[in-house]
Amino acid sequence: MFFKKVTIIGLGLIGGSLAWGLKKTGQIQEVTGVDIDEDTLEYAVNKNIVDNVSSDPNEAVRNTDLVVVATHVGLIPKVVNSLIANLSAKTTITDVGSIKEDIVKEIEGFLPSDVHFVGGHPIAGSERSGISYSDGELFIGKECVLTPTSRTDKESLNKVDNMWKLVGSNVITMDPQYHDRVFAYVSHLPHVVAYALINSVGSARGGDKIFSFAGGGLKDFTRISESSPELWSEILLANKHNILESLEEFKKEIEKIQGAMEEEDFKKLKGNLSKAVNFKQNID
Amino acid sequence: MFFKKVTIIGLGLIGGSLAWGLKKTGQIQEVTGVDIDEDTLEYAVNKNIVDNVSSDPNEAVRNTDLVVVATHVGLIPKVVNSLIANLSAKTTITDVGSIKEDIVKEIEGFLPSDVHFVGGHPIAGSERSGISYSDGELFIGKECVLTPTSRTDKESLNKVDNMWKLVGSNVITMDPQYHDRVFAYVSHLPHVVAYALINSVGSARGGDKIFSFAGGGLKDFTRISESSPELWSEILLANKHNILESLEEFKKEIEKIQGAMEEEDFKKLKGNLSKAVNFKQNID
Repeated sequence: MFFKKVTIIGLGLIGGSLAWGLKKTGQIQEVTGVDIDEDTLEYAVNKNIVDNVSSDPNEAVRNTDLVVVATHVGLIPKVVNSLIANLSAKTTITDVGSIKEDIVKEIEGFLPSDVHFVGGHPIAGSERSGISYSDGELFIGKECVLTPTSRTDKESLNKVDNMWKLVGSNVITMDPQYHDRVFAYVSHLPHVVAYALINSVGSARGGDKIFSFAGGGLKDFTRISESSPELWSEILLANKHNILESLEEFKKEIEKIQGAMEEEDFKKLKGNLSKAVNFKQNID
Repeated sequence: MFFKKVTIIGLGLIGGSLAWGLKKTGQIQEVTGVDIDEDTLEYAVNKNIVDNVSSDPNEAVRNTDLVVVATHVGLIPKVVNSLIANLSAKTTITDVGSIKEDIVKEIEGFLPSDVHFVGGHPIAGSERSGISYSDGELFIGKECVLTPTSRTDKESLNKVDNMWKLVGSNVITMDPQYHDRVFAYVSHLPHVVAYALINSVGSARGGDKIFSFAGGGLKDFTRISESSPELWSEILLANKHNILESLEEFKKEIEKIQGAMEEEDFKKLKGNLSKAVNFKQNID
């Protein structure tokens, strides 16, 4: 057995999938799920996603090897804070929030020295949310970023690293600050752009009719604009500084294309688009 | 037999796929393909995509029911003009250009009254180009927009409509002006945004490393930023007026999100993102 007990707080898409994935390995003696929603707990039990459920997080985290906070990103520090008094010295607490700098800083600010926290971010989100979309194989082959700092306990980092590897993830570590800058560009900026693109089409004269021709390219952009506005508003505010910086860069690039179009400078325009094609080759 | 002879000028992804699709129906006595590239003609013959090939468009369009100009969008009026002298009165000429207003206006400006042109735009482009990507089933279930004007010959419109239905397309008609405005929003604007997004990531400090985390959302945007810079520079200039207008709308929407972030106004931000989710439901 890797762990005697893992407790997951918040059984949404990520928390539910993690509980299920861990349970399927047979390497955890007890996987406990906590949620405030009774239907979610019932679903988790019926689908055999967890071993036990609880609606009392303070009770559920006692005598646990690993506590995973998988609530909305805006709630994470508050939830961690509320649990501290009930954690034993051998317990490691981690999270799955998609921003890290502020969360890690806030938590390390109030964490007693004998409680061990490791920041984490599994790259497996989707436009869907809720336990009904959870999948015990969600993390197989996906990246999971852990963000240890100078005060992170090495043994705790290993525990969290082992947990994500158990469910099939490739674990990467980076600074919380660097994480937030990278994800501003690869995830948060694209979401802002997708939301704004849909809004600009929807607000245009005859926008409702225009949408019916979305196959022409717009459709590629629309999956992520279905993502939860609640969750994404939290993310955008929590990583405000980096996202605003990336938005400035993005607007400059838009204006370069706009400028070349206004000047009807074919060569400049083609050069600009070719640059993107070259960058793009770095992705695959 | 629907047609005795169809001649397709330009055997790229669209021209090659159309030739192939028409040939597969068995309803055309002769499908002739014209291209300036010898390898393309050889490929078309070897793969049985056409019945005949020619490198001389003037020769190939003689005694043809239907001529389809499937060259780069910037070349279409010039190609049509060069063919006029060799078209018989029963020939209808059409195109596949992804912009329509300027093309149709220019062609109708020089077209003799006994030559019949119908503007067309099959919505089946892709980031790929060239005959090696062509597919005889490309148009099945796809929309094809025809853009007749007050001077379009009804019989010719029927012929072109029939041809696209033969290869499985759903034919829609609209004004050339309206077409260009709709496609500015659903196709051209998304392409500009995708190119600019990739450029802003690529230009950021450490951009090359950032790309390795593209799974976080960026990847959705990158397919179309692989599209040909040559072709897309032509499209952006040819539909400049509409695209610049849509870019202004888009920048306004970006700035609304930016403003709500700067004010840290969660309610305003969530309201803005929710608007996109509501619009999005019109797409599916």
